[in-house]
Amino acid sequence: MRIVQKFGGTSLGDLELLQAVADQVHHTVRQGHTVVVVVSAMGHTTDELIHRALVVDGRTSPGNLDFLLMTGEMQSAALMAMALSHRGTPAQAVSGAQAGIATTREFGQSRIVDVSPVFLERLIAEGITPVVTGFQGVAADGSYTTLGRGGSDLTAIALASALDADSCEIYSDVPGVFTADPRMVPQAKALTQLSYDEMLELASQGAQVLQTQAVLYARESQVTVKARSTFESMPGTRIDTGTDEPAHPVTAVALDMHVTKIGLVGVPDRPGVAALACERLASAGINIDLVFQALSHHNSRADIALTVADDDRREAIQVCQKSLGELSGDALVVDGDIAKVSVVGAGVRNHAGVAATVFRALADASINIQMISTSEIKISCIVARTDATRALNHIHDAFGLDA
Amino acid sequence: MRIVQKFGGTSLGDLELLQAVADQVHHTVRQGHTVVVVVSAMGHTTDELIHRALVVDGRTSPGNLDFLLMTGEMQSAALMAMALSHRGTPAQAVSGAQAGIATTREFGQSRIVDVSPVFLERLIAEGITPVVTGFQGVAADGSYTTLGRGGSDLTAIALASALDADSCEIYSDVPGVFTADPRMVPQAKALTQLSYDEMLELASQGAQVLQTQAVLYARESQVTVKARSTFESMPGTRIDTGTDEPAHPVTAVALDMHVTKIGLVGVPDRPGVAALACERLASAGINIDLVFQALSHHNSRADIALTVADDDRREAIQVCQKSLGELSGDALVVDGDIAKVSVVGAGVRNHAGVAATVFRALADASINIQMISTSEIKISCIVARTDATRALNHIHDAFGLDA
Repeated sequence: MRIVQKFGGTSLGDLELLQAVADQVHHTVRQGHTVVVVVSAMGHTTDELIHRALVVDGRTSPGNLDFLLMTGEMQSAALMAMALSHRGTPAQAVSGAQAGIATTREFGQSRIVDVSPVFLERLIAEGITPVVTGFQGVAADGSYTTLGRGGSDLTAIALASALDADSCEIYSDVPGVFTADPRMVPQAKALTQLSYDEMLELASQGAQVLQTQAVLYARESQVTVKARSTFESMPGTRIDTGTDEPAHPVTAVALDMHVTKIGLVGVPDRPGVAALACERLASAGINIDLVFQALSHHNSRADIALTVADDDRREAIQVCQKSLGELSGDALVVDGDIAKVSVVGAGVRNHAGVAATVFRALADASINIQMISTSEIKISCIVARTDATRALNHIHDAFGLDA
Repeated sequence: MRIVQKFGGTSLGDLELLQAVADQVHHTVRQGHTVVVVVSAMGHTTDELIHRALVVDGRTSPGNLDFLLMTGEMQSAALMAMALSHRGTPAQAVSGAQAGIATTREFGQSRIVDVSPVFLERLIAEGITPVVTGFQGVAADGSYTTLGRGGSDLTAIALASALDADSCEIYSDVPGVFTADPRMVPQAKALTQLSYDEMLELASQGAQVLQTQAVLYARESQVTVKARSTFESMPGTRIDTGTDEPAHPVTAVALDMHVTKIGLVGVPDRPGVAALACERLASAGINIDLVFQALSHHNSRADIALTVADDDRREAIQVCQKSLGELSGDALVVDGDIAKVSVVGAGVRNHAGVAATVFRALADASINIQMISTSEIKISCIVARTDATRALNHIHDAFGLDA
């Protein structure tokens, strides 16, 4: 089998861990598999490099920060290739540019546009295991680029697709995707299988497991992804197209604490008002999560509430403040003390009872639902942040996910 | 003017020094010059990376050590480009591969075979100052290579040649080339000008100033090199083709403590015997410095003495032991307690009195000369290591180099 194996920073925390990973890769190669290794920077290397960039006031120097940060992955790739070679598995460190990862020229957040793995195929043909630096590539003009933090997952999946690999194994310090975050829900169980769409909806939970852009790339290129633990021999979670008839309507429950609710109070109650507010945010590059419009109690004007990611909070408030002015609204209300609880599963659309079960579970626990949003495979509820963990556990229980 | 400026590891010892260098480069650019910067790794970075390679037993992993070490120069190039950009001189870090430095595929000691600075010329045309990583390049198969330690000088001179620069300034912590090592000869003076050949002969002294391969490349490509201090505003030493009629027959006195004398005692006294010993060493890649053959006092056999660099000592002894066996010689005598004192100057060949002055100076100081070798522009004497500093000072005095 041809396998791409990606190891993140926590799996390569120090040289001892790196050598344990090398033992594991060496073992897989000895079993007769062709392995292409993708590595992140070791431990806190990236943070240390960013610190040095700050000292010379260089964080905003376009291109040079990418050039600096990519050395972190290069060092871990070189050391991993050395450790493998020392074990009797000839290996060669390979940069993103050498691996043929062509990207856009958007420094710090480039997108992969093409992968031509000629250099890698030649190494493989020579019996040499390539150890590719994650998170980086090269733009058309020859500039080195990075894919943004966590982009090593994307590198691994893009290489798995280009190399026509049988699977892409993403190793981290957790043994796969769970029915809920085990730190919040002690009864949570590791999932055996998940569809790409379910994985995407679980992104907020799964951020530690698998990066969203990477899942999108996997869905597009139909790469089978396995999320596994570096430190345990469990099979992990397989992410692929999934079955048509899922055994359970609900697969997992996700919690996102990093959301902010912004309310535009007392705006005109006429068509297009919510659209205007949303368009303004969209053109500022801000994703809106949930939108809710209601008639105001007084003076027949309307209230609009929407949620955005905490990362976009500051900019979203500025944009909404402007929209409020244009609409001669009364006030802007910002509420950061909320959380989003989501039920995810391929069966959500076909089982009317799913929504009822969610609402009943929350009502029984006396938890107030502030906003609701549903998609084909997801139902999300905004609740007070103080109720979040309780909400998660009650819903997890209600669907019997601990069974 | 178009100037290549190269800064070594001591000039970039920490981020404070790096920023002082950035001030200096920024100043030169503001004066209207086009500058291409070449940097070594900061301070002890290379040593730290080698230490990490040792931990994973990877020092001998071909190619991967090059891949690891080149990150040191990449980091200093990125940080320098950031510091320059912050000062208002737009700058971009550039790798050896991007700079078009094509090398042989001899990992750790590759030679430059071609430079095609398309990427650099494009940056220059856009008003961006390139900051190129020294010491590295790319082989024909796409593998990254390093030129060997100190190869950043070579990078700078090769780029100066390819870019048709007016001069190549090599900055270090010494203000140029001296009439003798100032640590040994307190009266030593900095030289204003030196020919390539003289610089080559002073290599043992000049190792801290300029790498031998770099001087050879400069001579070949007729690049004017200036050896200057990063920390002082003195003009430094200009190294170029030199004048036909030097003002003084002798330019400088050099001392090399890192030599070993190996004697093959009691070998047959017939033609070709010294040649055999020398050929054996040459085919092992060992340079012989001086050779001396004399009739032995007993049994009409001969003694051969030769000197090699201390770095080659161990291997040279093995090769000579073998040669001794082939020649049925009596014994191998190894003497590490020697030093080589050399008088260098373009006028040596035309002034018969130079040799006499050297011998007289040493005789007056009661210093015994063990071996002598002369070239067009150099006279070297092997003396006891304990006499070395004294020999250096006496010769320096005899030629009035402190005047």
